[in-house]
Amino acid sequence: MSTKQASALAGKFSEIVGKDNVMTSENDRYAYSYDSAVLDPVMPGLVVRPTSSEALGRVVALCNEHGLPLTVRGAGTNLSGGTIPLPGGVVVLTNGLTRILEINEEDLYAIVEPGVVTASFAQEVARRGLFYPPDPGSQTVSTIGGNVAENAGGLRGLKYGVTKDYVMGMEFWDVDGRLIKSGSRTVKGVTGYNLHGLMVASEGTLAVFDKIILKLVPPPQAAKSMLAVFDSIAAASETVAAIIAAKIVPATLEMMDNFTIRTVDNFRHAGLPIDAAALLLIEVDGHPGQVADEAGVVERICREHRAREVKVAGDAAERNTIWQARRDALPALANLKPTCVLEDATVPRSKIPAMIAALDEISKKFQLTIGTFGHAGDGNLHPTILTDKRDKKEWLRVEKAIEEIFNQALALGGTLSGEHGIGLAKAGFLIKETGRATLDFSARLKKALDPKNILNAGKMAA
Amino acid sequence: MSTKQASALAGKFSEIVGKDNVMTSENDRYAYSYDSAVLDPVMPGLVVRPTSSEALGRVVALCNEHGLPLTVRGAGTNLSGGTIPLPGGVVVLTNGLTRILEINEEDLYAIVEPGVVTASFAQEVARRGLFYPPDPGSQTVSTIGGNVAENAGGLRGLKYGVTKDYVMGMEFWDVDGRLIKSGSRTVKGVTGYNLHGLMVASEGTLAVFDKIILKLVPPPQAAKSMLAVFDSIAAASETVAAIIAAKIVPATLEMMDNFTIRTVDNFRHAGLPIDAAALLLIEVDGHPGQVADEAGVVERICREHRAREVKVAGDAAERNTIWQARRDALPALANLKPTCVLEDATVPRSKIPAMIAALDEISKKFQLTIGTFGHAGDGNLHPTILTDKRDKKEWLRVEKAIEEIFNQALALGGTLSGEHGIGLAKAGFLIKETGRATLDFSARLKKALDPKNILNAGKMAA
Repeated sequence: MSTKQASALAGKFSEIVGKDNVMTSENDRYAYSYDSAVLDPVMPGLVVRPTSSEALGRVVALCNEHGLPLTVRGAGTNLSGGTIPLPGGVVVLTNGLTRILEINEEDLYAIVEPGVVTASFAQEVARRGLFYPPDPGSQTVSTIGGNVAENAGGLRGLKYGVTKDYVMGMEFWDVDGRLIKSGSRTVKGVTGYNLHGLMVASEGTLAVFDKIILKLVPPPQAAKSMLAVFDSIAAASETVAAIIAAKIVPATLEMMDNFTIRTVDNFRHAGLPIDAAALLLIEVDGHPGQVADEAGVVERICREHRAREVKVAGDAAERNTIWQARRDALPALANLKPTCVLEDATVPRSKIPAMIAALDEISKKFQLTIGTFGHAGDGNLHPTILTDKRDKKEWLRVEKAIEEIFNQALALGGTLSGEHGIGLAKAGFLIKETGRATLDFSARLKKALDPKNILNAGKMAA
Repeated sequence: MSTKQASALAGKFSEIVGKDNVMTSENDRYAYSYDSAVLDPVMPGLVVRPTSSEALGRVVALCNEHGLPLTVRGAGTNLSGGTIPLPGGVVVLTNGLTRILEINEEDLYAIVEPGVVTASFAQEVARRGLFYPPDPGSQTVSTIGGNVAENAGGLRGLKYGVTKDYVMGMEFWDVDGRLIKSGSRTVKGVTGYNLHGLMVASEGTLAVFDKIILKLVPPPQAAKSMLAVFDSIAAASETVAAIIAAKIVPATLEMMDNFTIRTVDNFRHAGLPIDAAALLLIEVDGHPGQVADEAGVVERICREHRAREVKVAGDAAERNTIWQARRDALPALANLKPTCVLEDATVPRSKIPAMIAALDEISKKFQLTIGTFGHAGDGNLHPTILTDKRDKKEWLRVEKAIEEIFNQALALGGTLSGEHGIGLAKAGFLIKETGRATLDFSARLKKALDPKNILNAGKMAA
């Protein structure tokens, strides 16, 4: 596929989406040549922006007819190269498809177009007195369509699950531009294959999402946030396991290591205990009685595991201070060095202490700065390697360290990616976790649904 | 495929599973020629019972090599003909694969073989102080493999979800007898396609399940059951909507109409109010404080909606009396007539009043006895037609009534099947809900994964 072929078709795309919604200039194409992964940009041939469901379907059919590679892009916040286009291919933007079509308060579901921004949607849902729990770090800019394609997680995964757990149904375009329907507006529904389930986490490789039916739930009545300070990271990670063992499932159970604490404190001067080995940031929510009980048990467990201090947020301002520190972790770390590699290899939560120890070893072995923070409660840590990709010697060590992080996660019964996706970044490692037979099975499925391999080729394939 | 071809291969199957685990006699084959659906039996050619994972894989490969139709069967409790074999085909039993391989209390998951009986598994999980919520009516005999293949629901679907919501991962055999892995032991995991999600509700048509990884949760600390008596079915169904609108999600929210109440009372003389138009059977669970609050609100809402009586179970015996009445509904109804057609068309819960009215119309129009009970809280009613299939005239009316029930559910934004599956029984109606494009898409997927169409052909296909 050459850029020429794609741009020769600009006229045909214009007929479908209007001239203003077809971009061919080098600047425009460059803007969509990369995403949030640490990977090289790839220039698409053109960029189109459908503003109706029908136009979206026609764009897909046109691409298929001409064998043009097609990459759908929401906000491009994914960290695995899932929205890096094919050379000369077509980028299809969803930011013209941003309508919330229905929020049904009686039946607890919503129907949205793929380009709706997650946080705006969650706010609109909250305004109706309901709750859409998935809260990926990117939520203020990322889209529901992108969240579904990546099965985005977030801080509340432990108690509330991830995007997958909220997708009740979907309409999507197949490569021929035919509209496929799966799932329903009902809690229960077993009519036909679970195609919407298959679409979740498929990274834009199987179909193009149109309307998405999302489950809503009543919001928790109360919440309590706590910050526990530890002099040993082992003690902190054992505390995580002890809380779960006590049959408490916090809404959020986050960890930060010393390097991250110091970096965050330096970023905002938030008064964090910069000498602490680790912090746990915990929120329990639900009925007020449950919150009081659970907060009490969590505090006791923290102290039993040698927390030197447990602060319980007394009001909204104190609560916000705790979570601002957590939200600052990534921007603060990313600020330190030109290149920030955010990993998300995930282990069963009881293996957090072992994973923390392994990360320490890896950091020493490859002489790299690794700040670790993340969703300790669901075993989904974010070891963050701070480096400069232009330093080729160090970058080689980074690549080796990443591979070793993957190996460790798998050896501990974990997985390559908890929530960031496979994309281009981890495609080569997929076989380590699933084996050849699984890749072959997946390839047969992909080929049947996308015979010309136009849909985001190369992502999640090896 | 003729019975001869299958039985000629009995020796080869014996080599894999042992002679005692291959059944070819007419009696044995007849025993596996039907399931719980009201459909005619179909004689398989032979029945095999693998007792190891490896043998299961080899059985699948042997069937594929010879193009033998293969139907996997757990307990055969499904109500849609999902386990009725192909003429002369092979029935593969899972009752030799009944090991619970792991219950991980720290990481809240279990790994089981497909033939584990659901209730036994749930009991074993409860013994470890944890909770596996899905509770299909068949749970005392049905198997986890069957539950996954049908995406079985149950009474707790409203609050806790259905089988799908508990499948974290799976290993399964493809038709070539290669072992495919999907999902993980972690709460978060986005490595590769959501193949285990696709397997859920696939009715044995895409692969053969080996090991299943299930999510476990902490059990609720307290529960309270209530029985509310209504003089109008409309008032009862409006109460259901009002409870959800009050942001209360009961663990269970069941309804019974007058015909069902009288039948159940006659069955066990349980002292039910036989003149009542409808009963709601409600259980709230969770933290004791939450249970007390929610029970209070539910009771108030029932009274505001003209419940003439609300009984709150004071102890375990009273609680059991309430739920025994619900458990009796199906056996009591089934006792009345030779043929009992249990439907499960499902609507968004706010449409329950409209669906109840439609069922009343349909019953009158076709002069049929329909007892209605079921999971009102998730819109999943079970209108139960009592008839005698040998009465050909009445049976024609039954078939027309069923079609009209489907049409009504779809017109109300619902779905053909909430939890019983499509199987053979509803395959012909699938197109009404999903359209031709969806069936074509599904057929492409099926063909790619099972090119010789050996896996439970004809189920869910139209």
